[in-house]
Amino acid sequence: MDAHVDVGRLTPKEYRQMVRKGEWTGSSMEACKGWALSDMIIVPREYAFDLFLFAQRNPQILPLIEVTDPGSPVPSNIASDTDIRTDLPRYQVFKNGELAAEPTDILDYWQDDLVTFFTGCSIAFDRAFELARVNFRGVGAFSTNIPCIPAGPFHGDMVVSVRIFASASDAIRAIQISSRYPKAHGAPIHIDDPATIGIKDLCSPDRIVLPGEITPVKAGEVVLYWPCGGATMREIVQKAKLPLLITDYPKSGFISDKRTEELAIF
Amino acid sequence: MDAHVDVGRLTPKEYRQMVRKGEWTGSSMEACKGWALSDMIIVPREYAFDLFLFAQRNPQILPLIEVTDPGSPVPSNIASDTDIRTDLPRYQVFKNGELAAEPTDILDYWQDDLVTFFTGCSIAFDRAFELARVNFRGVGAFSTNIPCIPAGPFHGDMVVSVRIFASASDAIRAIQISSRYPKAHGAPIHIDDPATIGIKDLCSPDRIVLPGEITPVKAGEVVLYWPCGGATMREIVQKAKLPLLITDYPKSGFISDKRTEELAIF
Repeated sequence: MDAHVDVGRLTPKEYRQMVRKGEWTGSSMEACKGWALSDMIIVPREYAFDLFLFAQRNPQILPLIEVTDPGSPVPSNIASDTDIRTDLPRYQVFKNGELAAEPTDILDYWQDDLVTFFTGCSIAFDRAFELARVNFRGVGAFSTNIPCIPAGPFHGDMVVSVRIFASASDAIRAIQISSRYPKAHGAPIHIDDPATIGIKDLCSPDRIVLPGEITPVKAGEVVLYWPCGGATMREIVQKAKLPLLITDYPKSGFISDKRTEELAIF
Repeated sequence: MDAHVDVGRLTPKEYRQMVRKGEWTGSSMEACKGWALSDMIIVPREYAFDLFLFAQRNPQILPLIEVTDPGSPVPSNIASDTDIRTDLPRYQVFKNGELAAEPTDILDYWQDDLVTFFTGCSIAFDRAFELARVNFRGVGAFSTNIPCIPAGPFHGDMVVSVRIFASASDAIRAIQISSRYPKAHGAPIHIDDPATIGIKDLCSPDRIVLPGEITPVKAGEVVLYWPCGGATMREIVQKAKLPLLITDYPKSGFISDKRTEELAIF
């Protein structure tokens, strides 16, 4: 496969086949523009009820778009002609909360009792912001002091992604648009003051740092905060210390056959 | 307690206490106007994952607003000072799919492994229709040929509730308003022609019949169909043949401490 292939233009099926053949182990973030990217958490059946309960109580952190039957590697309600053991660029395998491996397929780790949870990604509304010409800059992800509602072994604080909007009207439009996408984290959970949710310095993201220069918030700009599913769960997963838990490697989510617009509630 | 008490004006806490003392075993449908009524399904922990999976795949049938920890009779995210074993007017206990009892409390049936699922009720948007002066008449509930997506032992066809709107603009407004309430069944799933979803005669509801005369659809009227959680689940529950499953008796749902507006997505 041509190393210079424009993955943004591929269909989900083409992209998943390329990944399956080992021809792409890079980021999924820019792949298949307009199609719904999904983070993924795989747990043994024994812990699947607890993870469901955690998602039910924290729907803005884990907005579920699909959950498989135990043992099935096919998320048939969101994609066909796929196998989630091979069709993501890279995985993280956790054993008792410790990162044990970062393989490019999980065929050797598969068990007949594994249940896979798929969650929508905020890329869906980022695309809608872009189309609506909402003017903003992404900053990155930050730890907060906002506790998630615990369920079974799953507990911890929320990690948020921060976007700075050029004006109040851009921010208001962003709240309206993101509200249409509860399956992609939905409306923001906070406005403006970072200190009230435990963030010290908006110029120093302590997780994912997005490309581009980070500059302080200017007069007239409005800061909005959304729950970040991947980063929040990475911490929670480690604390939960399950015997086996598999996720997508950061920025290496699953591309489904759903258009991002199909995640919108109306 | 005065038999002529206006239950519509009670707070949820007052209503639940009255029910708990055995002073009210009637319908919950008219109680605590403006507060969210919820249907309830209780299953052993062993089947809770499957019920979660069914709700995930059929969110318009089972829009979950709360799920308890195993063994807990307190839905602490939607109500306080309550015990769901005593605070509903009446229950139905199913054993192996057969109706075994219709008690006014379930203290004798309680087990430490029971998990309780609460689902929002379309009363939430009916109230919003009323406030917005949307002109419609309820007809009742009908069986359809629309299959639910199965999960574990849960499978069956959808039962819908039918509302006939006075005009196209009333129907359009109703679609807009109900879309705000995904936790109360959300937008309708069908418009107008009953035959395409397997309904023969809109003048003969085969389930709940609402009060008032049923007349044929008139020129200019528009028919909308919503999934009916209680009636759909009653059939599915019987087919699933779980060793133990408890629901609220028809029209005897749980009144939570949430305002119906709190169920709206925005």
